[in-house]
Amino acid sequence: MFSVTVRDQMMIAHSFHGEVFGHAQRLHGATYVVDATFRRVALDADDLVVDIGRAGEELHSVLAELTYRNLDEEAAFAGTNTTTEALARVVADRLADRVHAGALGETARELEGLVVTLHESHIAWASYERPL
Amino acid sequence: MFSVTVRDQMMIAHSFHGEVFGHAQRLHGATYVVDATFRRVALDADDLVVDIGRAGEELHSVLAELTYRNLDEEAAFAGTNTTTEALARVVADRLADRVHAGALGETARELEGLVVTLHESHIAWASYERPL
Amino acid sequence: MFSVTVRDQMMIAHSFHGEVFGHAQRLHGATYVVDATFRRVALDADDLVVDIGRAGEELHSVLAELTYRNLDEEAAFAGTNTTTEALARVVADRLADRVHAGALGETARELEGLVVTLHESHIAWASYERPL
Amino acid sequence: MFSVTVRDQMMIAHSFHGEVFGHAQRLHGATYVVDATFRRVALDADDLVVDIGRAGEELHSVLAELTYRNLDEEAAFAGTNTTTEALARVVADRLADRVHAGALGETARELEGLVVTLHESHIAWASYERPL
Amino acid sequence: MFSVTVRDQMMIAHSFHGEVFGHAQRLHGATYVVDATFRRVALDADDLVVDIGRAGEELHSVLAELTYRNLDEEAAFAGTNTTTEALARVVADRLADRVHAGALGETARELEGLVVTLHESHIAWASYERPL
Amino acid sequence: MFSVTVRDQMMIAHSFHGEVFGHAQRLHGATYVVDATFRRVALDADDLVVDIGRAGEELHSVLAELTYRNLDEEAAFAGTNTTTEALARVVADRLADRVHAGALGETARELEGLVVTLHESHIAWASYERPL
Repeated sequence: MFSVTVRDQMMIAHSFHGEVFGHAQRLHGATYVVDATFRRVALDADDLVVDIGRAGEELHSVLAELTYRNLDEEAAFAGTNTTTEALARVVADRLADRVHAGALGETARELEGLVVTLHESHIAWASYERPL
Repeated sequence: MFSVTVRDQMMIAHSFHGEVFGHAQRLHGATYVVDATFRRVALDADDLVVDIGRAGEELHSVLAELTYRNLDEEAAFAGTNTTTEALARVVADRLADRVHAGALGETARELEGLVVTLHESHIAWASYERPL
Repeated sequence: MFSVTVRDQMMIAHSFHGEVFGHAQRLHGATYVVDATFRRVALDADDLVVDIGRAGEELHSVLAELTYRNLDEEAAFAGTNTTTEALARVVADRLADRVHAGALGETARELEGLVVTLHESHIAWASYERPL
Repeated sequence: MFSVTVRDQMMIAHSFHGEVFGHAQRLHGATYVVDATFRRVALDADDLVVDIGRAGEELHSVLAELTYRNLDEEAAFAGTNTTTEALARVVADRLADRVHAGALGETARELEGLVVTLHESHIAWASYERPL
Repeated sequence: MFSVTVRDQMMIAHSFHGEVFGHAQRLHGATYVVDATFRRVALDADDLVVDIGRAGEELHSVLAELTYRNLDEEAAFAGTNTTTEALARVVADRLADRVHAGALGETARELEGLVVTLHESHIAWASYERPL
Repeated sequence: MFSVTVRDQMMIAHSFHGEVFGHAQRLHGATYVVDATFRRVALDADDLVVDIGRAGEELHSVLAELTYRNLDEEAAFAGTNTTTEALARVVADRLADRVHAGALGETARELEGLVVTLHESHIAWASYERPL
């Protein structure tokens, strides 16, 4: 199995609901350094997993919909906690939609799966892994 | 599949038995930067894999039983080599015991698995992965 | 010249004022991985620059006054932009006050200087350096 | 499942064929920081996944066949693009040959699998994973 | 003293002249992860060392003149070895020219100095520091 | 001012004397990831700060005198605490002796200074800087 990973980042504000979150129930923020990993069994005709330029652009475009925002005010997240693990799934699902829509090219339709990891600091990170 | 990882560290002294270890048969030591990864299929009602605060506390507590010690003198390790890979299992098994005992909360009982990685330097690390 | 550095983090929300900030004029947030470096010419009687335990506690305590907050609502920052470089100075100055007040111990009064670095992502960071 | 990883590097020149590569069709180069991960279900009699010294030596030896070279002139790569993902497979396959030939010792024959990751910068890396 | 650092990368091919370089006399390549640090005594009216967006763009633009090239064929480097330390100076001097030409804005003319660091792998890097 | 840095590591056991050290008064150990930085005003005739191969070998050789040892039993450290900052000076002074003895080559005699940094974990490190 082959994989290729690209890294980018986003900076958001949000707050959490529920006693378990302690001080994080207050409005605060985070930088997420975001890794998107694309997996496939065999390389394409160019010896690639995916066109890394397009992969980076699509990841950047997905993150552009989230960065420099207060997620508490985004309709898409109403009624949920935008925890690191939940946001990893949001990014992965939106990237998967773009793969399925052909935004990463025809051969990217042969990708097997996707992993998105959000690093919230030097001591904590979360991932979501899904098939494509 | 979701995962959340927390990072901590421990500093121990030990020596190894067996020709394969060369100079490491002498008493020496290591800092292990320790990553504990918790995995589950679906998030809990708070949109969490695990309460990251409790996860960090339990990892710290497991490491506190090992750090600032000469492992050659610990009864638990008599007759074994406390290699990085063997210690990864010790940490993972002790964390698993705490999950099963409820120390990470009720919803943590739904965790699927655990990975513990011990980084012994910038050029070497070891992991142990187990179901829960 | 000797130095010792300890690392911690904080997660804040804020917004910026001024066209130069573009999208960052919107409420957003950041994780700052924070390094505090203490410098002195000669080691103390224990062969230390500073008691690293106390240094870490005082850094943590300074960051606790900032983390999980919306800095736009903090009186201390009224009329200023809480840029990474400006926050580096805030953390450094508050640490310096604690050194002068004796919170890091008597021998810490012999420290020559302090550097605080705030990493806002994997591709950007800022520092403030001052004498003590 | 246990694993042990060792890290080394290589510095090569190459160019790519195909419009998808844009400016990378020109002769350029890369440093690859290379991680080789060895996996097995149970530890050997010395409590090891693999003799980490020999693992590092064999990885270094595999990389020595590639480093400080223009891969465009290597017969082994004629007609292929030496992308990061393709090179990850080359390194993994050559390491696997050495494991099978006994270069990592008799107990290394019980290894289950191998992962090789090539980091080409702070924002991009690729992996190849195979059984042994 | 304040500083702000931005990070980018370039991938080049080159060879060295002189026995001291051993195998590196052969055509090979490198990824350089490049950090550019801007220093000034006091912040500007926006509480900034430099507009980080423009700083990143100018660094990217300087690196675009070098990346995906065989430096052996660049007239600018005829008769010199494009060692990591020499390239750090090239990048720093070209950035300094842009600062002086006003490309980073009027207030950037108050910058005191510049440091450029090129990381050539996980175990080696070089810097060049100059006034502005 | 130019600089070049090389990285290596050592793994030692030791204990500390003095109440300030708490649990670290017990025998324990550490991995130190060690960075040695060489500084000079102008490059040599080969466009180098220092022959990086020789620099790495001399650093490795200095660390070989310390690694895989219990520093409590080394005569050189009798009556002192082998803190991270104190060990940074030991490594720097021993490297400086080698530079003065010509081990890094004739042109290395023109080096201006040396910095040695010992990283003891992901959250703590210490440096010692000296002229040559």
